[in-house]
Amino acid sequence: MSEQDPLVIFTPSGKRGRFPAGTPVLHAARSLGVDLDSVCGGRGICSKCQITPSYGDFSKHGVTVHDDALSEWNKVEQRYEDKRGLKPGRRLGCQAQILRDVVIDVPAESQVHKQVIRKRADTRAIVMDPATRLYFVEVLEPDMHEPSGDFERIAAALADQWKINGLIADLSMMAKLQPVLRKGKWQVTLAVHHDHTGAAPRLVEIWPGLHESGLYGLAIDLGSTTIAAHLTDLETGEVKAASGLMNPQIRFGEDLMSRVSYVMMNPGGDREMTRAVREALSQLAMELAAEADISPDLIVEAVVVCNPVMHHLFLGIDPVELGQAPFALATSSSMSLAMAELDITSINPRARGYILPCIAGHVGADAAAVALSEAPEKSEDLVLIIDVGTNAEILLGNTTRVLACSSPTGPAFEGAQISSGQRAAPGAIERVEIDPDTKEPRFRVIGSDIWSDDPAFAEAVGASGITGICGSGIIEAVAEMRMAGILDASGLIGSASQTGTPRCIAEGRTHSYVLHDATADNGPLISVTQGDIRAIQLAKSALYAGARLLMDEMGVDKVDRIVLAGAFGAHISSKHAMVLGMIPDAPLNKVSSAGNAAGTGARIALCNIAARKAIEANVSKITKVETAIAPAFQEHFVSANAIPHATAPFPELARIVTLPAVSFNSGGEDGGGRTRRGRRRG
Amino acid sequence: MSEQDPLVIFTPSGKRGRFPAGTPVLHAARSLGVDLDSVCGGRGICSKCQITPSYGDFSKHGVTVHDDALSEWNKVEQRYEDKRGLKPGRRLGCQAQILRDVVIDVPAESQVHKQVIRKRADTRAIVMDPATRLYFVEVLEPDMHEPSGDFERIAAALADQWKINGLIADLSMMAKLQPVLRKGKWQVTLAVHHDHTGAAPRLVEIWPGLHESGLYGLAIDLGSTTIAAHLTDLETGEVKAASGLMNPQIRFGEDLMSRVSYVMMNPGGDREMTRAVREALSQLAMELAAEADISPDLIVEAVVVCNPVMHHLFLGIDPVELGQAPFALATSSSMSLAMAELDITSINPRARGYILPCIAGHVGADAAAVALSEAPEKSEDLVLIIDVGTNAEILLGNTTRVLACSSPTGPAFEGAQISSGQRAAPGAIERVEIDPDTKEPRFRVIGSDIWSDDPAFAEAVGASGITGICGSGIIEAVAEMRMAGILDASGLIGSASQTGTPRCIAEGRTHSYVLHDATADNGPLISVTQGDIRAIQLAKSALYAGARLLMDEMGVDKVDRIVLAGAFGAHISSKHAMVLGMIPDAPLNKVSSAGNAAGTGARIALCNIAARKAIEANVSKITKVETAIAPAFQEHFVSANAIPHATAPFPELARIVTLPAVSFNSGGEDGGGRTRRGRRRG
Repeated sequence: MSEQDPLVIFTPSGKRGRFPAGTPVLHAARSLGVDLDSVCGGRGICSKCQITPSYGDFSKHGVTVHDDALSEWNKVEQRYEDKRGLKPGRRLGCQAQILRDVVIDVPAESQVHKQVIRKRADTRAIVMDPATRLYFVEVLEPDMHEPSGDFERIAAALADQWKINGLIADLSMMAKLQPVLRKGKWQVTLAVHHDHTGAAPRLVEIWPGLHESGLYGLAIDLGSTTIAAHLTDLETGEVKAASGLMNPQIRFGEDLMSRVSYVMMNPGGDREMTRAVREALSQLAMELAAEADISPDLIVEAVVVCNPVMHHLFLGIDPVELGQAPFALATSSSMSLAMAELDITSINPRARGYILPCIAGHVGADAAAVALSEAPEKSEDLVLIIDVGTNAEILLGNTTRVLACSSPTGPAFEGAQISSGQRAAPGAIERVEIDPDTKEPRFRVIGSDIWSDDPAFAEAVGASGITGICGSGIIEAVAEMRMAGILDASGLIGSASQTGTPRCIAEGRTHSYVLHDATADNGPLISVTQGDIRAIQLAKSALYAGARLLMDEMGVDKVDRIVLAGAFGAHISSKHAMVLGMIPDAPLNKVSSAGNAAGTGARIALCNIAARKAIEANVSKITKVETAIAPAFQEHFVSANAIPHATAPFPELARIVTLPAVSFNSGGEDGGGRTRRGRRRG
Repeated sequence: MSEQDPLVIFTPSGKRGRFPAGTPVLHAARSLGVDLDSVCGGRGICSKCQITPSYGDFSKHGVTVHDDALSEWNKVEQRYEDKRGLKPGRRLGCQAQILRDVVIDVPAESQVHKQVIRKRADTRAIVMDPATRLYFVEVLEPDMHEPSGDFERIAAALADQWKINGLIADLSMMAKLQPVLRKGKWQVTLAVHHDHTGAAPRLVEIWPGLHESGLYGLAIDLGSTTIAAHLTDLETGEVKAASGLMNPQIRFGEDLMSRVSYVMMNPGGDREMTRAVREALSQLAMELAAEADISPDLIVEAVVVCNPVMHHLFLGIDPVELGQAPFALATSSSMSLAMAELDITSINPRARGYILPCIAGHVGADAAAVALSEAPEKSEDLVLIIDVGTNAEILLGNTTRVLACSSPTGPAFEGAQISSGQRAAPGAIERVEIDPDTKEPRFRVIGSDIWSDDPAFAEAVGASGITGICGSGIIEAVAEMRMAGILDASGLIGSASQTGTPRCIAEGRTHSYVLHDATADNGPLISVTQGDIRAIQLAKSALYAGARLLMDEMGVDKVDRIVLAGAFGAHISSKHAMVLGMIPDAPLNKVSSAGNAAGTGARIALCNIAARKAIEANVSKITKVETAIAPAFQEHFVSANAIPHATAPFPELARIVTLPAVSFNSGGEDGGGRTRRGRRRG
């Protein structure tokens, strides 16, 4: 290039250079390292390299762009315009040639490393850099005088046309090459998986001609109680479908330790559980593909996060060692493998899987995923991150140090072990308010924005449209009952006479509070029982004790901010969580909700291979704290049983929480929770 | 080390060095790079490091070795001696310490890179350097305060104790670690596969404590007609069991092109054939393990050689492209994969497979294996190597250049398509002589060294112990018939009156020659029919034409030497092959037999990973000649039909071959072979 050559300036990157007149824009962009996409390699068939030339006077760039700065609209562009249409002002970067000085904008959708739009403003951007990408290649035809295999000629084409060397392929891929190459007349699109592990690039799929139906991946959060997955577009990062189902392992035990016990009592029982979870995941993948209306074969990747017991059960490893000290994992590193090895057969048969590393025997890949999503190691503030689930993952840290533990909260927060509990789904009560004077409740159910005391509610939802109460609903209900004086500090529900509301009904020697009675219409009676309160107390004590244990370890007695996460984390009300004593005290405006942070972490790892590398490095720096053997955990657990403070420590909470000093404990009921119950039995 | 330190000299390597008094011999050997084996890493439990100190005056080395040159016999050695016994004079290298100047011999069995004894003196030595080896390690116990996975601690132990970094393992291995580590009390033996491909070392098996039952591999020659396998000890290279069976694909077509046609006519038929060959191989592996009395789980590797069609059918790739120009292979490179991917499930579930590269669409991994075994590229003489089989692999070359082709000989040479033909097995006639005067035959059968005209034959074999005629037998029979004047140059068998022997009996319009008639005892009638002669003529013409084609390409009309190979290659008589016109003329003492060279090549690749690398490099240098499209091949084929020369070109052959100028062609029989038959039909 010389001083006489036209100057080209790309926006938004600002990269600039001079190229001989006639240079295609795509070529110039590649020379300058401008992020301009192309699947077909400049052959004018994929249209990924669309750009927008700007004309006029660009004094800040010191150039004036004339109308004839680029070559004229050509036949290839016209064909594309006729067939699919181009947005106004757009050109194909591989066709338009630079003739005079020009300013060229690369729109977001033409960038390979696009930023993915995330809902929360406070989260880090996800930049697209997935492991699997598409490459269009022209393959040499076989020549019997220079014999070489079809695969070897594909690999040579990829090396020559895309500078990707050392392609490998599984056996099942080899069997597929010949017909596709011939159908595509030696022009094919390759899906190549090339991740951060240093493994050779691997051919996972091949299509004749230009493949235009996209590539997809699954971000999977394998929880003890629920399995959630996001079907994600690997080009744009967009979530095309999201769904969840109950973990079928629940029939072997509601919490992790009961499942480990099941294996101890039933040798080989782990294989049943492995099969159950794998089948469920295959099913879920198929449903998601149907929902997004794509062929399941287009799902070529999956990232899985889960706690250690689920990790072992999913991988087909006996989890018994995880049930006893020293809680030794069979393997703790991240894994990169074929999803077919995990019997996930409903997706592409060569789909690759990535499983995040486990932090310790009790702190799994799900905690690693939360760390990836919430990045405590980058926080200047001391942040407490609580991923609420059947097993809670708790992280505490800042740029100096990050601690992690897990706490066996049980499934109560997910609506299990609750008398009217159900999974968060339409019909479930998710928000509850109780008037402290009348003790009358009002609520909202999932699927409607109308409160139950609104006249429009009956028509919108109807008495029979209320099916149960979900995790966030039970948390609000219990907290509201406490604030309305229906519950005393020990967690005991008062009788109708003690509370002054007929909604407190006797059930055996204890009482329940009726939220909704549709029995007259053969509908359900939805109430909060004393047993429900006890289950929530155990769960929240475990959560609180875990958080306190990390705070002890860190040597602090308060944190700067709290992030609540979980499959249903987005729906937890911070106020109610704090009233309940689920989380340590903090200014209410410093408690935020991160939604399904583990699932988000999985999605980040799915979209960006550098994130995989980063979390693998970070995991080794996280200090693991073992709750199961820490005496302090037991102490915190016991002392956290009450539903707390008559006076709240922070002004904004004090305004909300005006807890009555009621006590309904008449000595006849086991109001003391687990410890007292233990004592009485002994 | 200093001048005052004792000098240690190792034999046979001659390596020497000075070490501080008290240095264990194993340590000194390792420092000097002396090839001294150890599986347990010097813990005194594997006994692989046995050495023999020499005492006395070694003037050639300039040292005198005193009785106290090594430390005294210790408890560990005594324990081993009591338990297993040591050969006289032997010490354990890890226990005996160097105290004064000493000469130490490393016996062959204590060397890692042992030379394998091969039967033929003219072949290159195989030096043991297999991909899979055993390593004893002590693994750190899990510590909940420093959590890490069992696998990660195994990998760390291997890196620390054996300097082997970056261990990987399949999922099924992960599931096996925990019980074995605990059973072995954190001492385990690992089988680690680390080949020439640059792939990470892979854990394929683990045993508690020291594993002493060895490691085995299979060298497999997948022929069109027969499948042969050698079960080989991966420490010594010794063949522990060898066996073969008929390729069950024969029911889909006797030769390769009929199998390709079967797939063309029956879409999906390739899958049936794939299943058939894989099942047969699984079965064969199991039988070999039983024969060698080892657990099939100890078979951790296999090397497979085969022609391109078998290659594709075994790998599950449709072979149809190989049936038509340009004969494009789906993949031509070598492959390294899990045998389980090939459904070979009777051996270790994590056993690794290596498949040699194919040279071209008609010249397969079997030809590559022959090249590996016979190394034409290292021959100063121009050598013609013919691997006789249903598809013959032919190589011609020397240090300057190597050419290769294959020729579709059909299964006649393997006893198929022959009226009394059978596989080479006890009872098969393998050697034949016919008296030129009396026209009486005598023969030998496999399993006995006694000729049929020996009085002891009846008792040793008996008339009913003769079951048929194998490939080498039919070659000798036809050549002897020609030399005895029973057959004319066109291949026509004379009548009893024409030949003067009642052994020539009429069968329809042609005649057969009776080798053995046991019909009186309800036994078989074993004869050579006119059809048999025609089958052999077609086969040998194809073989000869292929060899001539390579000679044309090389621009020569004779070769310096000929090597005959094949599953039954060891048994072919050079003289008879030349009489038959199977091979070009050459001095008889320049025709040698290489046995199953393809199988040997597989065994070399199994025992030595450098050989794999070498053949991969060589294959790319071999010039492929395509017989199917060469007009010259057809010309050679037609002109090679006769059973040759009335006068042999070489004196030694002339002495043997005094062919009568008989002709039995009366015009009524199609004595002209394919060409004349064609003409008559036209």
